[in-house]
Amino acid sequence: MPLSLIKTVGVIGTGVIGASWTALFLAKGLKVIVTDPAPEAEAKLRDYLQKNCAKIPNAQVTINDCFKNLRFVKDIDAYLGDVDLIQENGPERLDFKRRLFAHLDAKTPEHVLIASSSSGLPSSEFVTECTNKPARILIGHPFNPPHLVPLVEVVPHPGTGDEYVTAACQFYRSLGKDPVVVKQEAPGFIANRLQAALCAEAYSLISRGVISAEDLDKTMTSGLGLRWALTGPIMTNALGGGGDFNHFIDHLGPAFKSWLDDMHQHQFKLDSPEEIGNVKGRVNDWVSRVNLEEVEKKRDEALVDLVRNK
Amino acid sequence: MPLSLIKTVGVIGTGVIGASWTALFLAKGLKVIVTDPAPEAEAKLRDYLQKNCAKIPNAQVTINDCFKNLRFVKDIDAYLGDVDLIQENGPERLDFKRRLFAHLDAKTPEHVLIASSSSGLPSSEFVTECTNKPARILIGHPFNPPHLVPLVEVVPHPGTGDEYVTAACQFYRSLGKDPVVVKQEAPGFIANRLQAALCAEAYSLISRGVISAEDLDKTMTSGLGLRWALTGPIMTNALGGGGDFNHFIDHLGPAFKSWLDDMHQHQFKLDSPEEIGNVKGRVNDWVSRVNLEEVEKKRDEALVDLVRNK
Repeated sequence: MPLSLIKTVGVIGTGVIGASWTALFLAKGLKVIVTDPAPEAEAKLRDYLQKNCAKIPNAQVTINDCFKNLRFVKDIDAYLGDVDLIQENGPERLDFKRRLFAHLDAKTPEHVLIASSSSGLPSSEFVTECTNKPARILIGHPFNPPHLVPLVEVVPHPGTGDEYVTAACQFYRSLGKDPVVVKQEAPGFIANRLQAALCAEAYSLISRGVISAEDLDKTMTSGLGLRWALTGPIMTNALGGGGDFNHFIDHLGPAFKSWLDDMHQHQFKLDSPEEIGNVKGRVNDWVSRVNLEEVEKKRDEALVDLVRNK
Repeated sequence: MPLSLIKTVGVIGTGVIGASWTALFLAKGLKVIVTDPAPEAEAKLRDYLQKNCAKIPNAQVTINDCFKNLRFVKDIDAYLGDVDLIQENGPERLDFKRRLFAHLDAKTPEHVLIASSSSGLPSSEFVTECTNKPARILIGHPFNPPHLVPLVEVVPHPGTGDEYVTAACQFYRSLGKDPVVVKQEAPGFIANRLQAALCAEAYSLISRGVISAEDLDKTMTSGLGLRWALTGPIMTNALGGGGDFNHFIDHLGPAFKSWLDDMHQHQFKLDSPEEIGNVKGRVNDWVSRVNLEEVEKKRDEALVDLVRNK
């Protein structure tokens, strides 16, 4: 499936993620055939595109052309012969995805790559009833908002063909995205696991009153996060070791271990209504005083600058 | 101790952290009296200042004035009556810091705030032999490189006076830094705990072959880290919940728990030479192919831009 042949993308589901993918595909000049069973879905999507297509970095067509290349259909079955790639964004329910993928696999020509935006369910769990060509199915998990954040986690299931992993990465890269390959189906993939590991400790520190929610965020936005936006955790370790990762881990490993042991003793219990209530109270004390619309608007503007300058 | 009275800072120790603090203090127009027993310390410091003072955002004096305001002394005792604040950057050894702080506390006028750059030792452990005024002693832990990264963790010990916590925050803020107050002495304070929590999972994923070291870093630099540089983990959660942290944690808490349970089963053992060797091998495969000097230079330039644009 040479990349030059990907001219038309099928998008299934136009919630937050599906709408954002649609905006990106259209802005890059692709034709998009899109479906969503929700009432008002088409009107909401058009409204979203109107607001967001023009903001996409390196857009290749005008907003008018975006709308010309969009086709919203009630039932996508009749169009499955016309698409070169499908990006699926349905609900994260196993029974739903199993039925949907069995159907898509049966009805879509064999050469068409089918990617799921699933943020948690590994595809091995929902290709179980695909009897046509499950080798062309994989996860292409974007990061919110997908039209601004470059990361896509490409996660094959054990039966996915390597050529489809390569093709998916090439396709996403051609849109200006930055794909990574997750070689085994770990629950939560990579970024969400890293996020959960850090957030669990953040919740513990806040609920124990070690630091306020506002200051916790500041340790990231004025410290750790500034470095991690530019060099990831591993390169940051290596630079911290004077260019030598071995020196870093030999030198700081014992300290990391002692901190982790202490964290383990104060582990936040995500299934404890009392601990959850405690962190909610402390977080909301701060968040309720903040103009979130303004924060989000500034964040999105800064995100565009940051991605452009990298 | 009104801020306007902090005109002269004593700096003890001119390793990486002490030299960087010195550059910042000088660039902001303060007089600095500095000492370090190492041979060549003065020459190394002058070389560092020559290279770095001009790069400091919002420098208030010329590089010539920086050198005019610098005084390198063999023995700082005779000058302890002349300083308004001390920033200590000695070795992270308990016996050393205990002796040093007992001495500084005895010899320095009572109104002078004494801050330690300690990255791990809480000050309650090393003020034990201070008999004059330990209430003016606290941690002011910067983030490397301190002249570019705004974060300072201010950590009082149980006997530190609130007025000194306030004064330290005001002083660091007046230099353009962004202090946070750590209200209890947790080992590793805040940022290093968060870093260790995330890195331990990163090491596990890399050593198990789930993802390459290079792609692990990309999940941060093209995804999570971009968001965290702009909104911290808590605000990112709230925005992910459509502006409602409660919605986020109610909705994603169970998924976080299932990922954390899986991480716990695959916990990286920082005291296992075999696991450490495995992660070193995989990291070095990548890092050895990278021009680290260039990465660091670009990182520092981008850091200045990022801090300026925030």
